[in-house]
Amino acid sequence: MAITGCKKKQIAVLTGGGDAPGLNAVIRGITVKAISLGYDVIGFKKGWAGLLNQGETHPLDLDQVASIHVTGGTILGTSRTNPYKEENGVNQVKESLKKHCCEAIIAIGGEDTLGVANKLNKDGIKVVGVPKTIDNDLSGTDYTFGFDTSVNIAAKAIRDLHTTAESHRRIMIVEIMGRHAGWITMHASIAGGAHITLLPEEKFDLNEICKVIKNRQDKGKNHTIIAVSEGAVPKQGDMALQTKEKDAFGHVRLGGIAQGLCEELEKSCGQECRHVVLGHLQRAGAPSAFDVVLGTRLGVKAMELIDKKEFGKMAALKGTEIVSVDLQEAVGTLKTVPKEFIKEEKLFWGIDD
Amino acid sequence: MAITGCKKKQIAVLTGGGDAPGLNAVIRGITVKAISLGYDVIGFKKGWAGLLNQGETHPLDLDQVASIHVTGGTILGTSRTNPYKEENGVNQVKESLKKHCCEAIIAIGGEDTLGVANKLNKDGIKVVGVPKTIDNDLSGTDYTFGFDTSVNIAAKAIRDLHTTAESHRRIMIVEIMGRHAGWITMHASIAGGAHITLLPEEKFDLNEICKVIKNRQDKGKNHTIIAVSEGAVPKQGDMALQTKEKDAFGHVRLGGIAQGLCEELEKSCGQECRHVVLGHLQRAGAPSAFDVVLGTRLGVKAMELIDKKEFGKMAALKGTEIVSVDLQEAVGTLKTVPKEFIKEEKLFWGIDD
Amino acid sequence: MAITGCKKKQIAVLTGGGDAPGLNAVIRGITVKAISLGYDVIGFKKGWAGLLNQGETHPLDLDQVASIHVTGGTILGTSRTNPYKEENGVNQVKESLKKHCCEAIIAIGGEDTLGVANKLNKDGIKVVGVPKTIDNDLSGTDYTFGFDTSVNIAAKAIRDLHTTAESHRRIMIVEIMGRHAGWITMHASIAGGAHITLLPEEKFDLNEICKVIKNRQDKGKNHTIIAVSEGAVPKQGDMALQTKEKDAFGHVRLGGIAQGLCEELEKSCGQECRHVVLGHLQRAGAPSAFDVVLGTRLGVKAMELIDKKEFGKMAALKGTEIVSVDLQEAVGTLKTVPKEFIKEEKLFWGIDD
Amino acid sequence: MAITGCKKKQIAVLTGGGDAPGLNAVIRGITVKAISLGYDVIGFKKGWAGLLNQGETHPLDLDQVASIHVTGGTILGTSRTNPYKEENGVNQVKESLKKHCCEAIIAIGGEDTLGVANKLNKDGIKVVGVPKTIDNDLSGTDYTFGFDTSVNIAAKAIRDLHTTAESHRRIMIVEIMGRHAGWITMHASIAGGAHITLLPEEKFDLNEICKVIKNRQDKGKNHTIIAVSEGAVPKQGDMALQTKEKDAFGHVRLGGIAQGLCEELEKSCGQECRHVVLGHLQRAGAPSAFDVVLGTRLGVKAMELIDKKEFGKMAALKGTEIVSVDLQEAVGTLKTVPKEFIKEEKLFWGIDD
Repeated sequence: MAITGCKKKQIAVLTGGGDAPGLNAVIRGITVKAISLGYDVIGFKKGWAGLLNQGETHPLDLDQVASIHVTGGTILGTSRTNPYKEENGVNQVKESLKKHCCEAIIAIGGEDTLGVANKLNKDGIKVVGVPKTIDNDLSGTDYTFGFDTSVNIAAKAIRDLHTTAESHRRIMIVEIMGRHAGWITMHASIAGGAHITLLPEEKFDLNEICKVIKNRQDKGKNHTIIAVSEGAVPKQGDMALQTKEKDAFGHVRLGGIAQGLCEELEKSCGQECRHVVLGHLQRAGAPSAFDVVLGTRLGVKAMELIDKKEFGKMAALKGTEIVSVDLQEAVGTLKTVPKEFIKEEKLFWGIDD
Repeated sequence: MAITGCKKKQIAVLTGGGDAPGLNAVIRGITVKAISLGYDVIGFKKGWAGLLNQGETHPLDLDQVASIHVTGGTILGTSRTNPYKEENGVNQVKESLKKHCCEAIIAIGGEDTLGVANKLNKDGIKVVGVPKTIDNDLSGTDYTFGFDTSVNIAAKAIRDLHTTAESHRRIMIVEIMGRHAGWITMHASIAGGAHITLLPEEKFDLNEICKVIKNRQDKGKNHTIIAVSEGAVPKQGDMALQTKEKDAFGHVRLGGIAQGLCEELEKSCGQECRHVVLGHLQRAGAPSAFDVVLGTRLGVKAMELIDKKEFGKMAALKGTEIVSVDLQEAVGTLKTVPKEFIKEEKLFWGIDD
Repeated sequence: MAITGCKKKQIAVLTGGGDAPGLNAVIRGITVKAISLGYDVIGFKKGWAGLLNQGETHPLDLDQVASIHVTGGTILGTSRTNPYKEENGVNQVKESLKKHCCEAIIAIGGEDTLGVANKLNKDGIKVVGVPKTIDNDLSGTDYTFGFDTSVNIAAKAIRDLHTTAESHRRIMIVEIMGRHAGWITMHASIAGGAHITLLPEEKFDLNEICKVIKNRQDKGKNHTIIAVSEGAVPKQGDMALQTKEKDAFGHVRLGGIAQGLCEELEKSCGQECRHVVLGHLQRAGAPSAFDVVLGTRLGVKAMELIDKKEFGKMAALKGTEIVSVDLQEAVGTLKTVPKEFIKEEKLFWGIDD
Repeated sequence: MAITGCKKKQIAVLTGGGDAPGLNAVIRGITVKAISLGYDVIGFKKGWAGLLNQGETHPLDLDQVASIHVTGGTILGTSRTNPYKEENGVNQVKESLKKHCCEAIIAIGGEDTLGVANKLNKDGIKVVGVPKTIDNDLSGTDYTFGFDTSVNIAAKAIRDLHTTAESHRRIMIVEIMGRHAGWITMHASIAGGAHITLLPEEKFDLNEICKVIKNRQDKGKNHTIIAVSEGAVPKQGDMALQTKEKDAFGHVRLGGIAQGLCEELEKSCGQECRHVVLGHLQRAGAPSAFDVVLGTRLGVKAMELIDKKEFGKMAALKGTEIVSVDLQEAVGTLKTVPKEFIKEEKLFWGIDD
């Protein structure tokens, strides 16, 4: 039912949290489907901040979304603003929706953004979600967009680094995103041909790493590539490998483990080590084909959910289908790499050139 | 139970049909898992031909499979040989297995190869399958490896061709693999930002195409990119757009529709048209990260099925899991692009820059 | 000296002939340099057609050229229109320049476009040129932009095609641009690892090709990649390998030699052959770093030449410097691949994997 | 004249210093040309270390060099060993050459390696050089191989980082190789579309940087990409931005300026900043087409110089030609980015999207 005094059905769209390749495909998917169903769409800029008092909007029509799906980032901008942490935030959201004649919101984001969406839904605002995280650690969906792009970038880095590592007979450590889940590291390590894979899901053993390196040396394989999640931690408890630097705005910077591990391995294994921190390269640039298609389909589905008044839901991938699941499901438990997969992958440690 | 007189458990592996990026990942996955389970592995060269009288073998151990997973093609070579079309073919296969002390076969291939595998299984040979087709049209698995790589290649081509098409204000037609199913074309068209998508699943209407092109011109969008499956056919029955050339060996060559359609559109829409046939570029080069991971996991699973004596099965992707399904299931009905997906995608025709 | 009644110094820019990656870098280079020198810039659309009666213009200021240098094609559009072939064409050009208060023209183009520029200069119009051709066959400059991008695209195609050629034990022929000069083919063949290189500069010998293929087979190298320029011709005179199809507008289409050669080699060498025609892929997409830098520097230089009133000249690359040469020099003799280079490259035929 | 007791003319080849994409092309070029001239070739492993007492060799024939030119790194391995810093080093080199029946050495390397080559030549050993440095700062040659590959990698990183920088409205700093010369940074910055370029050649001014950033913000361009050479230093003398960490083996690690500058800009410009250190990614992976062709041609030329007994020379690129220059010339003055180029490039600061 339309808000009184508003001429047309209208929908709000926002993107929250870290950007992920594929966001623009979702925005375009929503917009095109919305227009086909007789809705108008307004984008709100910088995540939830766009729906607070000082918020800005961005028109979303066919011209605005033309060809955006093949580009990375989000044309709406993003932020980590949380209306529940702002004074009178929820009311501000309600006022913004009313002022802009929006019946409902589609919120595209990760655990934080969807957590807010879920709460707002319980607080009487009509919300549909679209899951987003490069880390692929959201429950309720098989894969999230951005993940495949990120894996391809990290895998290419790993693959390419072989040539210089081999020429100099070095250990080369590649630090990959993933504070709590090792999905990107795991897939990129396999796809890029790393020799050792270190994930947040299982504490790593320096002795085991050295052993793999020595075995390789015995076979004349004088370089070793290690793929390590930024959230991986050593078994050996007295080691403080990770940095937790903050920027001038109090945000934690990426990275640290690769450098610490490099220094440690030079000492304990006696081989020269270099490291690379992929950092923002992992979320930079155009989305992979998988992520464009997934983002587009999620956008279309989210708009269908709006039209069918299935609020409190999010669009999700299950097998080859785009389905709807409760927002609650996504913001519940973190999806980590299964023990069994980690065990299987260890069979491949050290065997490659 | 081992073949009499053979010292060790041993498994045969072969790859059949057209090559697909990811095949080597399967071969490596099988080999590493096999060795961990106490098996030896022998590769048979050139598909089923390797198991016939003149067949050749290729050793498969850790050294042989090191780093092959990041490369395209198949180190075993491939062919379209069918033992059921060779005199005494099945017996030759049995003899080869006996001679080489192989208890069972893992056959990696598409509809034809798995069809043979299924028959051989019924004829008393222990077989496990791994589904392979770039076209993604095999039932029984969510996706096949090779498909993602192929989609990325075709999407990049489509995306890149915008610049020259726009500079010259041309129609540009990109001919993409898919005789019976339009999966690659569909995904590549979305991911690459084509304006019109023509699939084998639904006859296309020249008038509708011209209308989209004219609408674009009216908005000052003077170029149009069309993604067309090689198997797409026009509604207008009296048009003979496709060529069916054969090479000197009687094999049908790729292609034809793009050129025919280009000539037709120049006449009927009055705009210059150029076409590109992607051909073998779509199966060339290194596999995408998705395909390396999928191939590796399928290989590991296939070997597990052997070890658990689940013959007549194949490894398959369902959601995020690798499961086993009956070989019969894969070689049954062709998996085509659903009508609903085709309808949804049409909403996007012509809107992009 | 400014045209009477015009307030400000103003310059016309146009791009003619086939598009080449790097054109937009030139346009941006000209515009930024022009503004720094106190000039205004107007773009004329579709090559020389923009300066004829029905011609259209495109504003060129800092906003219009922002970030265009990293994109392919030309934002001005292009055509093969020749004012000397239009009735009263030269006067129309003069009128357009007067009407738009343009003192001089910067013409970016190949042999045809620069040939017109040279004539116009002699006919009293102030012109400066920028050389452009993917084919790299213009005299007076070491390299032309677009060439490096094109070589990288063709080299990647050649390199990638090895996997499928090898898996199927096939000859694979890659048809590459170059009607009269084999520069792209030569560089791409070396960089991509083709086994045989066929250029327009030297008629090829089918027997020699077969011999290389047989030698490879003898060493167990069962695939052969051949890089062939579209303009290559066989020694054997009675063979008609090339097609000269025209589109509905009378323009010659690309291609033909690869298919003819494939059929011939299947017969004469007895090995299966497939071919790929790269066609417009070779000029599609974003320019390489080399071409962006070269294009930018040429644009800056061309504007300097205008400012220094060095008309009838063009900007050109000599070593690491951007210099000026007479337009006459560029439109003189075709620059072809030297005999010595062709001879040296033959040393490498057939040796690679 | 051959060494007494040796049956055949034989040449030594080694690669020294940091690896660069294109080294393998040089090795292959030398080998193929050598064989055509009737020479044998032996590779010595790990740079000059291969010619010292404990040194190892690597056979170089057609099989060994097949297809290596399309791969990065060096199949011979490399090191920074200097025979003039080893006890009796020069005699060891002479002994090794005698033992292996080598008449002369081709040394492929940068300033250090060629410096040794030059000295050895004066000390009576027949040496020819091939210039190598990613940094492009060697005199005596227009460009060095590895440089173009590196520029393309850094340019792609810069280009891709726009999407995430823009989505979050951040400053993004990309740290690029170049301790003493800013060639890679300069070319990558132009080709990737960075907004500010900071080189070792000219001290940078924090106020000027902030001003560009503020100007961008005023136009609604809320992100800024800065390309900075690792060797760039600020005008403001009391700032200690750079780290000079050493590894366990006493080698200086890459990097530091980007992080320091990021922290400084967050404080002084009040905008969030993130940084990426490209590090070894810049020398990783396959060479660009330009570098394969250049490397191949340099290798062929170096072997010609050997055959013509032009010792004490190196092969070099001048315009489109491969020429010979005195080794002395290469190891003289560092080639830095000219003031004029730096000034021109500043015209483009801040203008792009």
